[in-house]
Amino acid sequence: MGLHNRRYRLAARPAGMPARSDFEFCEEAVRELRDGEVLVKVLYISLDPAMRGWMSDARSYIAPVAIGEVMRAGGAGRVVASRNDAIAAGDHVVGMFGVQEYAIAGASRMQRVDPSLAPLTTYLAALGMPGMTAYFGLLDVGRPVPGNTVVVSAAAGAVGSIVGQIAKIKGCRAIGIAGGVAKCAYVTGELGFDACIDYKGEDVRAALRDRCPDGIDVYFDNVGGAILEAALARLAMHARIVICGAISQYNSGTMKGPSNYMSLLVHRASMTGMVVFDYAPRFGEAARDLAAWLKSGMLKSREDVVAGLDNFPEALAMLFTGENTGKLVLKVANA
Amino acid sequence: MGLHNRRYRLAARPAGMPARSDFEFCEEAVRELRDGEVLVKVLYISLDPAMRGWMSDARSYIAPVAIGEVMRAGGAGRVVASRNDAIAAGDHVVGMFGVQEYAIAGASRMQRVDPSLAPLTTYLAALGMPGMTAYFGLLDVGRPVPGNTVVVSAAAGAVGSIVGQIAKIKGCRAIGIAGGVAKCAYVTGELGFDACIDYKGEDVRAALRDRCPDGIDVYFDNVGGAILEAALARLAMHARIVICGAISQYNSGTMKGPSNYMSLLVHRASMTGMVVFDYAPRFGEAARDLAAWLKSGMLKSREDVVAGLDNFPEALAMLFTGENTGKLVLKVANA
Repeated sequence: MGLHNRRYRLAARPAGMPARSDFEFCEEAVRELRDGEVLVKVLYISLDPAMRGWMSDARSYIAPVAIGEVMRAGGAGRVVASRNDAIAAGDHVVGMFGVQEYAIAGASRMQRVDPSLAPLTTYLAALGMPGMTAYFGLLDVGRPVPGNTVVVSAAAGAVGSIVGQIAKIKGCRAIGIAGGVAKCAYVTGELGFDACIDYKGEDVRAALRDRCPDGIDVYFDNVGGAILEAALARLAMHARIVICGAISQYNSGTMKGPSNYMSLLVHRASMTGMVVFDYAPRFGEAARDLAAWLKSGMLKSREDVVAGLDNFPEALAMLFTGENTGKLVLKVANA
Repeated sequence: MGLHNRRYRLAARPAGMPARSDFEFCEEAVRELRDGEVLVKVLYISLDPAMRGWMSDARSYIAPVAIGEVMRAGGAGRVVASRNDAIAAGDHVVGMFGVQEYAIAGASRMQRVDPSLAPLTTYLAALGMPGMTAYFGLLDVGRPVPGNTVVVSAAAGAVGSIVGQIAKIKGCRAIGIAGGVAKCAYVTGELGFDACIDYKGEDVRAALRDRCPDGIDVYFDNVGGAILEAALARLAMHARIVICGAISQYNSGTMKGPSNYMSLLVHRASMTGMVVFDYAPRFGEAARDLAAWLKSGMLKSREDVVAGLDNFPEALAMLFTGENTGKLVLKVANA
């Protein structure tokens, strides 16, 4: 077809923050499609904290990206050619397309979406993995009941922003933790959380005592480190901690465990890990709820769009310096 | 009545290992009974790792022992006088009698036991709080199913020895972790565990890989620290960790959290704290099972008896140096 594909391959396992030197930028010809395959032009690439883990060769829930392999990433795009009856040229799709301009995969590796119902980027945010993660992590693992106090870290981020909004929809108090005055104002003003603690400007332990006078019933953790310890120090009896991520630790070299984990005993509390992929058979159920809440205005999805495939390494780093508000996506092409 | 009561009062909050200088030894007259009260001659005092926590003023599941107060402890004794219709002189009872020769309390603060059914010390071991802790911690929090691999630390101790035996009764594989060849031989030979890892002589991580080829389904933690981390490194999918204690950390000054707690996410596992007192309404149910297993020989209770109230501080320290095998009790009087 004569198409050229610009892509980032993993060149090195990063020490600390991922950097441009950890990737190799390549320009390669797009090969011919085989029977059953679909060619997708990638329009948006999803940038997720989990990508840092995939770059590492530590044992995890999924195999690491091999050195030399195209960097793994979710994305949304438009089908430009298909040799599969299930998907036609012109369809819009989401899938794990990698950090590149064109992806080739079987139809089972992608999902059709309707850009007339929601912007394509929303299928990477509230209607995508962050939405699914928030929905099942909060409701299935956190099991909040009306009146509960739900605290979520990275509250202005892709997952945290949805966790707090679902908590409100379910009749809970939602308290966010985020970095900076602007993010906190967004979390309370725009997203309707009851309060938001600025971990850059406030003592989080003191602030949790103040905002959670009856303790924390559900803590949804995206960050680990000192903020997880602060939440452990403020648990209500029978509290549930959802372990979704530990972004504060991913680039630190040595992970730090929560030194006050015996608060789990004192408060007869639990700490449970979750991985969104386990809920794949139930994604439809979540998508129906999330789409209805979006339509009614009860749920807001915000995407923070950085333009240009060339900017991928620096855009990825924004996740770890906390520069994004809402779901971070990289725009690769217009249509 | 002219009785003299020798007792230990808490004199100081220990830094590190509890020492004789943290207690004040007193000899005081036993006061007259009031209506409703019972006078108990303490025969055995229960020595428990939790006592270290009660000496500290850190926030916990129970108020600390105040400086100057008689040191809190469970015990078993014989009623020598009663002004309460529910309990008569000559009855044998267990309760929180403190570290002293005579205790005065209302009848609701003690429980009658029958020394013809089991030795009095067994009511402080398999039929007492250690038995209840093992029973509810394993079955209610750990939720093992037949065929599961159950690992327990401090496996030669009061709680751990019962956890593994109940695991066997319930059709699981039981793997202990204990300190020293003699304890390990006791755990496998006498108690019937499938294996026991000597943390003083073996690399626990390597040994867990070897003894738990399919991973750990239930880990019952009494110790914390490096052994908790080794267990986290070997979890099976959907594993349950029961947090019952952290004896390796109690005297360390600073608690260390498990640095690899993100294994909970990788394995969709949970870590849940438990306190035995919550199960008080169901103690009868556990006691029936435990007594039946004891009677049939399926369950063995072993008590490690140190004689002499005078030896209390040094006997307590034995828990933390790992000198006891089975339930450690202090014998105060013959009858």
